[in-house]
Amino acid sequence: EYTDKVMENFQNPKNVGEMEDANGIGQVGSPACGDIMKMYLKINDDGIVEDASFKTFGCGAAIATSSMATEMIKGKTLEEAAALKNSEVVEALGGLPTEKIHCSVLAAEAIQAAIEDYKSKH
Amino acid sequence: EYTDKVMENFQNPKNVGEMEDANGIGQVGSPACGDIMKMYLKINDDGIVEDASFKTFGCGAAIATSSMATEMIKGKTLEEAAALKNSEVVEALGGLPTEKIHCSVLAAEAIQAAIEDYKSKH
Ligand code: FES
Repeated sequence: EYTDKVMENFQNPKNVGEMEDANGIGQVGSPACGDIMKMYLKINDDGIVEDASFKTFGCGAAIATSSMATEMIKGKTLEEAAALKNSEVVEALGGLPTEKIHCSVLAAEAIQAAIEDYKSKH
Repeated sequence: EYTDKVMENFQNPKNVGEMEDANGIGQVGSPACGDIMKMYLKINDDGIVEDASFKTFGCGAAIATSSMATEMIKGKTLEEAAALKNSEVVEALGGLPTEKIHCSVLAAEAIQAAIEDYKSKH
């Protein structure tokens, strides 16, 4: 029921873990399941996302979408990263079961929260 | 918010993966989040659980409880394994947040389903 891309990003997720020198950190929770997603960004002086990582206790769908989303925003401007839509991430993964869409929104929401955090400090 | 034992069983889960020579296989799903838990048991002629493994796309709580539950039933009789209560697994993990209890029931339910599968064939 899960695509190969989803399984790949679940079993070998990219960009997992805390980032010591992050300058934007966002955290969001899912009202649907209680899971939490924490996102770390390193944004350089030109406003480019140099690095991104995440930490979650959430399910495979949350892990796969965060792995994909962090890959998608690296090298992008803050504005481009903030505009990343949940639906684009799901599309890049080849789709997700309907009941797992609530998990997939965490990545994009946490990226936006991390960018807000960065902006509030700069 | 998660105990050390939960984090340990989430980050280094025991008994993950399919089992080729399983003679009891059970699968259950969570109505709350849509996640699925598959449990594999190897039961010997004396009715003892020789080996147990699981596969899930579920969250950290599902992974941690399944890791702990599979460890708890190894070496036990079928009757003892079937009687394993979700609350005993959660207790062995030092507790879980209330909103994650629905994830922790999957392990015990999948063990019972795998034992039913074994019994139906023997
Ligand atoms: S069920 Fe909680 S993040 Fe997927």
